[in-house]
Amino acid sequence: MDTLTAEDLPAARRPRRALVFIGFMGAGKSAAAKVAGERLGLTVLDSDRLLEERLGKSIADAFSAGEESFRAAEEDLVCSLLEKLDAGSVLSLGGGSVLSKKVRQALQKHLTVLLDVHPDIAWRRVSDSAGRPLASDAQAFRTLYSQRSELYRSIADAILPGTPRETLPAAFGALVSLSQASPQAKLLWASSASGSYPVLIGPSLLADGIWPLAPARRFCVTDETVGELYASRLGELQATITIPPGERAKTLANAERVWQELADGGMTRADLLVALGGGVVGDLAGFCAATYQRGVPVVQVPTTLLAQVDSAYGGKTGVDLPQAKNYVGAYHQAAAVIADTDTLETLPVAELACGYAEVIKTALIAGGELWRHVAADEPLNERVILQCARTKLAVVAEDERDSGRRQVLNLGHTVAHAIEVLTEYERLRHGEAVGLGLLAALRLSGQGELREQVSALLTAHGLPVTIDDLDATEVVKLTARDKKRLGEKVPFVLVNAPGDVVTGCEVDDGALAAAVSELCRS
Amino acid sequence: MDTLTAEDLPAARRPRRALVFIGFMGAGKSAAAKVAGERLGLTVLDSDRLLEERLGKSIADAFSAGEESFRAAEEDLVCSLLEKLDAGSVLSLGGGSVLSKKVRQALQKHLTVLLDVHPDIAWRRVSDSAGRPLASDAQAFRTLYSQRSELYRSIADAILPGTPRETLPAAFGALVSLSQASPQAKLLWASSASGSYPVLIGPSLLADGIWPLAPARRFCVTDETVGELYASRLGELQATITIPPGERAKTLANAERVWQELADGGMTRADLLVALGGGVVGDLAGFCAATYQRGVPVVQVPTTLLAQVDSAYGGKTGVDLPQAKNYVGAYHQAAAVIADTDTLETLPVAELACGYAEVIKTALIAGGELWRHVAADEPLNERVILQCARTKLAVVAEDERDSGRRQVLNLGHTVAHAIEVLTEYERLRHGEAVGLGLLAALRLSGQGELREQVSALLTAHGLPVTIDDLDATEVVKLTARDKKRLGEKVPFVLVNAPGDVVTGCEVDDGALAAAVSELCRS
Repeated sequence: MDTLTAEDLPAARRPRRALVFIGFMGAGKSAAAKVAGERLGLTVLDSDRLLEERLGKSIADAFSAGEESFRAAEEDLVCSLLEKLDAGSVLSLGGGSVLSKKVRQALQKHLTVLLDVHPDIAWRRVSDSAGRPLASDAQAFRTLYSQRSELYRSIADAILPGTPRETLPAAFGALVSLSQASPQAKLLWASSASGSYPVLIGPSLLADGIWPLAPARRFCVTDETVGELYASRLGELQATITIPPGERAKTLANAERVWQELADGGMTRADLLVALGGGVVGDLAGFCAATYQRGVPVVQVPTTLLAQVDSAYGGKTGVDLPQAKNYVGAYHQAAAVIADTDTLETLPVAELACGYAEVIKTALIAGGELWRHVAADEPLNERVILQCARTKLAVVAEDERDSGRRQVLNLGHTVAHAIEVLTEYERLRHGEAVGLGLLAALRLSGQGELREQVSALLTAHGLPVTIDDLDATEVVKLTARDKKRLGEKVPFVLVNAPGDVVTGCEVDDGALAAAVSELCRS
Repeated sequence: MDTLTAEDLPAARRPRRALVFIGFMGAGKSAAAKVAGERLGLTVLDSDRLLEERLGKSIADAFSAGEESFRAAEEDLVCSLLEKLDAGSVLSLGGGSVLSKKVRQALQKHLTVLLDVHPDIAWRRVSDSAGRPLASDAQAFRTLYSQRSELYRSIADAILPGTPRETLPAAFGALVSLSQASPQAKLLWASSASGSYPVLIGPSLLADGIWPLAPARRFCVTDETVGELYASRLGELQATITIPPGERAKTLANAERVWQELADGGMTRADLLVALGGGVVGDLAGFCAATYQRGVPVVQVPTTLLAQVDSAYGGKTGVDLPQAKNYVGAYHQAAAVIADTDTLETLPVAELACGYAEVIKTALIAGGELWRHVAADEPLNERVILQCARTKLAVVAEDERDSGRRQVLNLGHTVAHAIEVLTEYERLRHGEAVGLGLLAALRLSGQGELREQVSALLTAHGLPVTIDDLDATEVVKLTARDKKRLGEKVPFVLVNAPGDVVTGCEVDDGALAAAVSELCRS
């Protein structure tokens, strides 16, 4: 294609900050910068090439002459590059340069894009190329990778897959949107067997009109409470269809009303459905989108913590039957997720707490930085929500249709579900039941200390750690019945350690009864 | 894996007739015979190898010494092989041997399986291999291919894709079922982006208990009329859910009843839904299967001609809204289609005629043998139904989600739909409207002679070729409005000749008005 200059593009399609690609060696940073330069009309810079020019020798030679002096020269060059860099440029950074704190500080005013490559793929790409000083030994390569990957993720504004030629052209719109958003906003790229989509997380996304998709007519489904607060921030809407707030609204009757109002409003497959609300709105509107005219795109705009960290991702949609929850539904991945953290400000404390139970669950699954943050009970922020979303999306990417790995997301949910059924969904919110379920799962995992830690976190967030009038033998019976009813194993998800979670575990009835009894106030 | 003998397999998994693989050179016949031999414990025979042994020279040498004597020796050997072949054997036949009428007659007592390979793939496989006397010139190869492909299809009991290593292991169950069915029964293998499945077409399939899938609990959805006649032929059912007959039953209320009865009956994702009936049952039960617990497998058992030639294939499911038909639905490919032609015996004449309109439409799309058969008004039989199904499945395989090629299936349907809306779905059956729509499409295509021919066929089958009180300008207006309403082009599908159908054609309003006026009785 012809080379563009930034001036050839409409302003809406130009980045407002310079793009800087970071990532491990072999992530595809140079290729990404080249593609971005071509498509967005940006000047392409490559810190490794510039460094070689300045030093008059190859990176490999400079590195082998001494890592310390090499890093000093690199820091000096990169900092001066980042100082001068403007929105008309794209830079690919050498893999190790972000080890410098000065470089990380200088990156803050730009849009830092991590190409998140799997170590196997990175190794395949670099292992037979000459001149990579740190790519001569597979074991050392992996060690270095695991040392650096958290650092990369912690400084990135956007995390894209390390397949720039396939992903980038689709992701440009989202990157440009991100460059126009608050500096705290973050972008993830969700991939699954049935498609990929941008996830934006951050403050003020709705108020700032950040929209990572091409313009289209929009039909909104929301609930009475959320609609009143935030529908006006969505800009022009063809129609706003409102359901009552609360889990009881997740019915076929409400789905029918949505379908009919979409038809009455003349919605077509060229239009977008926007699901503005918590898990109930997301599930119901997602299901209506999956099935209206055999499928229209849906943008999920989650407004509760639970939805922002969990339910808005992964494409599970549905409504309840009187017989059972989520019994009618479909898998339908979103066209985009826009999680505006400002909407959490109006969330009732009890709802925030419920979402926190899913944060704890996700942190136990993820381990690493997310678990350390949650375990230290540090404040909730965009980065925690981003890491929860990233954890869930990584699981879904492996197993969209819930046949294997996705089961890890059920951590704590087997007992939680039994408790919810036995209390007829009346006495506890879902997040409260999940908190109790996590405690039971940790006891079954033989993790007494971790259970204490989680119990303290639940308490600190106003979530119960015991429950009155629960019959442990009823929970055991119900779990066994569920097994039969679902025609599949309802095995337990157990925890070896934060970040090391095992699915498909059989659990002894006696142990289960004891773990549940422990939840009952005596 | 260990080599099996036929005796190692349970009787239900053993073929009752010998398998004979036929197809063009490069179709993969030898590989298929080898795979079948290993998996089903059958003796593997290869006519080309046996012929080389008998002649003491290679096929290439024997062929170049004179085709006539080569063919005579081939016929002699193949006929004696086929004479002796028993159910414990699998034979791969040289590509040209079925040119002999004697060979074709001898094949009749066996199960003839065509590996239907695309000519590009066949050419790629054979063009660089030595010793293929007829594979030295690409143009000649293609000519030979198009000469022979109809012959192959006309004698095959089963048509499978020419990718035996991928398809065969999945298709063995269906092949074994077919070997146990009436000799008139046929098998197709449907492929699409979201999966592949067997299609069985023939008499007595239900009465004979032919079932091409692994055993599972079955839940049946049917209508009152069909259920009474045929549900008992399905063997053991966990539940039979009955809806009223007729298009008016395709409602969300009936879908809700089905979902609830499935839940009450304890259906799980390990069970099967069986849709026993015409298009309404297929669409509604298919939609319920697509969404019950986010998707359970459905076996379509179509009992009307329209469903057997058209609507049971391709995975479009849904129900009507009061606002418009099929406005709530999903794509959900069947796990299998079992089209028992015995069920057509009880079909009202008017319903049979309606199905015939779709047969004519499909024959215009397919051309070739199917069109010649239909144009000559020869009797409806398994082969016609098979060819209609094969035509539709070939289109769906290219374009499951209706974004391009699948539009050809709308031939005649643009005007038909307008007529149905203007007559409020009261005065005409769908097939009657399609017949009229075909006449309009042929006029718009400038195909006066073909229009006469189709008109005569419609009349012969009791279908109308004119309609009272239809306002041509209203049809034109409605077509324009549909364009807008669907947010996509509603372009016309036009016919250059049977087998040569073009989508996306813009049509002049005046010409459309004239083509419709011609349908109106003056």
